[in-house]
Amino acid sequence: MDTTFALQCPIPIQDYPTITLAHGGGGKLTQMLIERMYLPAFRNPLLESLHDGAILSLAAPTNGLARLAFTTDSFVVSPRVFPGGDIASLAVFGTVNDLAMCAAQPLALSAAFIIEEGLPMEELWQMVRSLARAAEEVGVPIATGDTKVVDRGKGDGLFINTSGIGLIRPGIHVAPTRAQPGDVILVNGPIAEHGIAIMSVREGLEFETALTSDSAPLHGLVAAVLDAVGEAVHVLRDPTRGGISSALNEIARAANVGIRIYEAQIPVGDAVRGACEILGLDPLYVANEGKCLVIVAPEAAEAALAAMRSHPQGREAAIIGEVVAEHPRRVILRSRIGGQRIVEMLSGEQLPRIG
Amino acid sequence: MDTTFALQCPIPIQDYPTITLAHGGGGKLTQMLIERMYLPAFRNPLLESLHDGAILSLAAPTNGLARLAFTTDSFVVSPRVFPGGDIASLAVFGTVNDLAMCAAQPLALSAAFIIEEGLPMEELWQMVRSLARAAEEVGVPIATGDTKVVDRGKGDGLFINTSGIGLIRPGIHVAPTRAQPGDVILVNGPIAEHGIAIMSVREGLEFETALTSDSAPLHGLVAAVLDAVGEAVHVLRDPTRGGISSALNEIARAANVGIRIYEAQIPVGDAVRGACEILGLDPLYVANEGKCLVIVAPEAAEAALAAMRSHPQGREAAIIGEVVAEHPRRVILRSRIGGQRIVEMLSGEQLPRIG
Repeated sequence: MDTTFALQCPIPIQDYPTITLAHGGGGKLTQMLIERMYLPAFRNPLLESLHDGAILSLAAPTNGLARLAFTTDSFVVSPRVFPGGDIASLAVFGTVNDLAMCAAQPLALSAAFIIEEGLPMEELWQMVRSLARAAEEVGVPIATGDTKVVDRGKGDGLFINTSGIGLIRPGIHVAPTRAQPGDVILVNGPIAEHGIAIMSVREGLEFETALTSDSAPLHGLVAAVLDAVGEAVHVLRDPTRGGISSALNEIARAANVGIRIYEAQIPVGDAVRGACEILGLDPLYVANEGKCLVIVAPEAAEAALAAMRSHPQGREAAIIGEVVAEHPRRVILRSRIGGQRIVEMLSGEQLPRIG
Repeated sequence: MDTTFALQCPIPIQDYPTITLAHGGGGKLTQMLIERMYLPAFRNPLLESLHDGAILSLAAPTNGLARLAFTTDSFVVSPRVFPGGDIASLAVFGTVNDLAMCAAQPLALSAAFIIEEGLPMEELWQMVRSLARAAEEVGVPIATGDTKVVDRGKGDGLFINTSGIGLIRPGIHVAPTRAQPGDVILVNGPIAEHGIAIMSVREGLEFETALTSDSAPLHGLVAAVLDAVGEAVHVLRDPTRGGISSALNEIARAANVGIRIYEAQIPVGDAVRGACEILGLDPLYVANEGKCLVIVAPEAAEAALAAMRSHPQGREAAIIGEVVAEHPRRVILRSRIGGQRIVEMLSGEQLPRIG
C-alpha cells in the first residue's frame, strides 16, 4: 500500500462539508467518495478492480490455485419489511449476488447485526428466521457473526452487514474492464421492481397490481449462463442502488467503451411503469435486487438468452443493447420514437435507504 | 441447515421484551442470544465451533487443502477517537486479531461504513486514513468495501464493519474445545487498558498517568508463539467485550473443563487499577483490544512465555492460571490473600459501546 496519500481531505470541503444521503445513493457522489478518497487511501490491486467483490488467488499446499471472491455489503433498508422481502433476506441475497457477479459459487456468509436498544425481541427473531431461511434457500452457511447494540436514538432498529466468500469458477474471468465493442448486453427480467416496491410502501401508494420487490438470489441463474456460454461471458453486474444507469455507466468507464441501450427492449412491468410516472422516477435509475446485467461476446448472445430464459429467475430475460466503440465512457439510450439521449450516472439521491 | 427451528421466539418475550444494551455487552445476555436464537436458527458446523471466526477447508484444484478463517466484527465505539486509537484502527486490528485467534495469517479485509448524514467530510477522511494506516501496519489489503448513509438521527456518525479472511497455519488446530486439564494459561500483558481508556474519556476523568487503549494487532505475536511451540497451542482467544472473565468462561464451557486463575499473577497496570477502583469496575470484566489468552500444553508453557516476552506485543506476558478437571464449566480466582471466588460471566452491561 501507499503511505504517501494526501494529508488534506481529497474531496473539497468547501463544496462538500458533510456527508449527505446522496453519498450513499450509488450515484455520482458515491463514485466521488470511492475514486477520490477510498481508492487513494487503500490503494491495492484487489480494490482497484472496482468489482462487486475482491478476487483472491490462493496458493494451496500442493501448488494448486483456488480463486476466491470476497465481498461485503451493509443493509439499512427502510422499512425493514416490504412486499417481496425484508432486510434479512435482502442481506443474504444481496451478498450472494455480489459473489455471483464475480462468477463465484457462495461458500460462506457472515452476518453482523447493529441493533438499536429497544428493538422488540420478537422482531429480531423474525429477522433471524428470515436470514436463516434465505441462507437455506441459497444453500450457503452463515459461518460467523457479530452483534452490537447501540443506544436508543443512535441507530434505526436493525442494520445488517453480510460479507461473503465464494469459489470462482475455474477458467472464468468476468470483470467490468472486459466489456468490448460488439458485446451484447442482456438483463434477466423487468427492472426497477425493488425500488418501486420500497417507495410505494413509504409513500403509502396503493396500486391495483401489487408492487413486489424482485429480491432473489442470482447464483443459479449465473451458473446456468456460465454452463451455456462459459468464457464468452465478459461482465456480470447486479444493478442495485442507482439502477441499470449507474451500473452501465460504471462499466463504460471501467472498460473505456460506449454503451448503447434500446428503450423498447428494456423490460419494465406495467405497474412499475405506472408507479414511476406517478412518482416522477426514471426506471433506469431505480434499484433492483434480483436483476443481473450479463455482457457476452456477440456469438454467444442467443445461447446466453436461451439459458437465462430456461431459468426461473430469467423467464423474461431480454437483449437490451450493446457495447460500442463510439462515445467511450458514455451510455446512450435510443428511445422508442428514434431519438437518443445520454443516460447519466445518478446525480444526488433519488431513493435513500433502498438496500 | 435445519428447517425445523421454532416458530416461537426462543427467548421468553415476557422476560426480555426488547433488546437492551446488555445484549451487545459480551456477557450473559449476548450468550443467550447466540445460544438460544442464532445457533438454532443458523445451525451449521462452522458456526457451532463458537470460535472467533469460521474455519473453512477448501479443496484446491490439485487436491491440496487450504484452510481459511472467516470472521466479521462491527465497531460502534463511542467516542470514535480515544487515547491510543480510533474506531478505524480498532476495526482493522480487531478483525486481524479475530483471524489471529484462529491461527490464521490475514489475507484480506473488507471495510463497510454506515455513515450518519451530516458527518463532517473531514472526519470521514481522518477515519479512512487511519484505516489505511492500520491496514498498512498489518500488511493486509482492504480488498472490498461498501458505504451506506442513513438519515440524521438514525445512526451515530460512523459505524464500521470489517470482515476478514486468513490462511490457517498448516498443522495447527486451535479451538476453545481443545483446552484440557493440565494446560497452562498465559496472557501477553496488562489487562483492562482499552475499556478503562474509553471510560476515562467518557467520564472526563484525569489521571497522572495517561490511560491508553492497548489496541494493537496480534498476528505477529501469535505467529511467534506458533513458531516456538506449534501444536502445543490449544486455544487462542482475545478477551475483548466482557474481558478475560467472559473469555475464560466461554472456554470453560466449550471444553467442559474448570479454569483456575491467580489474582497475584494477572498483570494490571497501576493506573488502570486505580481507575478501576474509582469507577467501581473489576479489571477481569473490562475489555481489551491488544490482549491474547494463550492456552498451551504444560510442557510448552515456558517456551511460549519466552516467545511472547521476546515480541514487542508481549514484553509483560505472564502465566496467569491453568485448566483443571475440577469444577467443570467454572472459572475460579485465587485471591492474593488465599481466598477463592467464582468468576461469573459478565451479567448485564458494564461498558456499553466499547468496541
